[in-house]
Amino acid sequence: MKKRRIVIALGHDALGTTLPEQKKAAKEAAKAIVDFIQDDCQVVITHSNGPQVGMIHTAMAEFHRLYPEYTATPMSVCSAMSQGYIGYDLQNSIRTELLNRGIYKPVSTVLTQVTVDPYDDAFYAPTKIIGRVMDEKEAEAEEKKGNHVVKVENGYRRIVAAPKPMEIIELDAVNALLDADQIVIAAGGGGIPVLVQGNVLKGASAVIEKDLIAGALAKGVNAQQLVILTGVENVYLNYEKEDQTAISEMNCQQAQEYMDEGQFKEGTMRPKIETAIDFIGDSAIRSVLITKLDTCKKALSGQGGTVIKK
Amino acid sequence: MKKRRIVIALGHDALGTTLPEQKKAAKEAAKAIVDFIQDDCQVVITHSNGPQVGMIHTAMAEFHRLYPEYTATPMSVCSAMSQGYIGYDLQNSIRTELLNRGIYKPVSTVLTQVTVDPYDDAFYAPTKIIGRVMDEKEAEAEEKKGNHVVKVENGYRRIVAAPKPMEIIELDAVNALLDADQIVIAAGGGGIPVLVQGNVLKGASAVIEKDLIAGALAKGVNAQQLVILTGVENVYLNYEKEDQTAISEMNCQQAQEYMDEGQFKEGTMRPKIETAIDFIGDSAIRSVLITKLDTCKKALSGQGGTVIKK
Repeated sequence: MKKRRIVIALGHDALGTTLPEQKKAAKEAAKAIVDFIQDDCQVVITHSNGPQVGMIHTAMAEFHRLYPEYTATPMSVCSAMSQGYIGYDLQNSIRTELLNRGIYKPVSTVLTQVTVDPYDDAFYAPTKIIGRVMDEKEAEAEEKKGNHVVKVENGYRRIVAAPKPMEIIELDAVNALLDADQIVIAAGGGGIPVLVQGNVLKGASAVIEKDLIAGALAKGVNAQQLVILTGVENVYLNYEKEDQTAISEMNCQQAQEYMDEGQFKEGTMRPKIETAIDFIGDSAIRSVLITKLDTCKKALSGQGGTVIKK
Repeated sequence: MKKRRIVIALGHDALGTTLPEQKKAAKEAAKAIVDFIQDDCQVVITHSNGPQVGMIHTAMAEFHRLYPEYTATPMSVCSAMSQGYIGYDLQNSIRTELLNRGIYKPVSTVLTQVTVDPYDDAFYAPTKIIGRVMDEKEAEAEEKKGNHVVKVENGYRRIVAAPKPMEIIELDAVNALLDADQIVIAAGGGGIPVLVQGNVLKGASAVIEKDLIAGALAKGVNAQQLVILTGVENVYLNYEKEDQTAISEMNCQQAQEYMDEGQFKEGTMRPKIETAIDFIGDSAIRSVLITKLDTCKKALSGQGGTVIKK
């Protein structure tokens, strides 16, 4: 029997913020991931990188302040570094968990770029806050460089666009590794955002929404299932209200109706549902599971979590 | 006919130091690499990362000073970040050069770890100087953390071990991509040095000699040729002396004899020749080319450069 191919998307909760937090979190995430591998799945893992890329961005900005001859490090380079950093911890924790269960299986991280459209509306209205808090003078200097800043409680922070993913440049590499029955970590942090300029890819000052890239990756590897691990066990109706109700299963039409009613919050649950509807499309085979890392095992056996099907 | 499989090792000269330097250098390196691809080779690229990992290490140390709750970033994590950073520039410049010549071929970077022996002599006598210059107080603090420091002209710098590579953890991934006729960048900066502790890989405070890892990689992918691009056009006898003589070809026995005579400088040419002799071994098919980036094309057609054969 051909193996089930799945994409697992790890949210912020599955990776933590600081270095020791990430190491610990990656160990827990590995357990959930290896459950799927033991269930005879071919697995691609993608992950968020918000705090990590923020850390690197701040560190490189400090370096630039100390050594101006190095020029500032663009967001795209920080994103590439974060893929290296997170991939290293993740591939190791997965490898260890596999060996602990007596399984030998190669796992690796592929540095991944994703093209975005320079005319994406997102570039006109940046929404993703990144990096450290700056004072007014620093904020002005950022704006002079053409970067956007936004006022926050205790100062200013940079804000970048969150355009839609178009093409995953390294998709062929991901598919070749899956075809060899290996485990792949790809498109970390939504992928390194790049703009196509003739034969050149140019880093874009942007962050790609990780739910959307998870959907694009799931389509690109022709996955049967997309597993989105986030901060809640289920998708809920009337979320955080008195009559909050967990959804255990819904079809795409229902999901669309709930979304039209405004049930799912912008920037958190809504992009997950949009991704699910888009990924499943007309397929009777594809499904999406949305749950928390620690309820994932239960959900694997059909208990807990929210499943979306055609 | 089966394609020739080669490993190309890019030295420091092929990558530069600062961000803009690296971008420019990667473009030149790509031209040499694509010459080999056009010559019908399957190519793995590995590269040095000295200045880059130094930059990241300094940046992360500054970040730690500002935000102590993040803990210090280990050398191994800095190495993982540098693979992301350099791989991003390299894979893009290769992709662009391929497209400029009308070739479509996937190229990607695989995050690579390499095991080292905790009892390697190198750990008792660290030799690789890394990171920024520190004052006496900072140097003492480093030593208290168990790190080694060394006195330099204007203060102190950290010094780490350069142990021999043992196993390339992600070799299966590299081979799967080569088997799919794709171009791979791997083991950047000598690979992320790790120690085996049961089922766990633990980052080692070390830097792996890039010539040795290039040889290990060439063996691991069963390459026919290892191309070492360095700062000189040829291997020389009586290097930098009045009677300096370029070697155009030599066999392993001659190479060994010259080495025994002390012809090749420790830390620069000697590890390259050691690597060549070890890689070629008893094989009548394998060869090593040592030359400069800009004389590589000439060397490809048999002019210039030093070729070592059995």
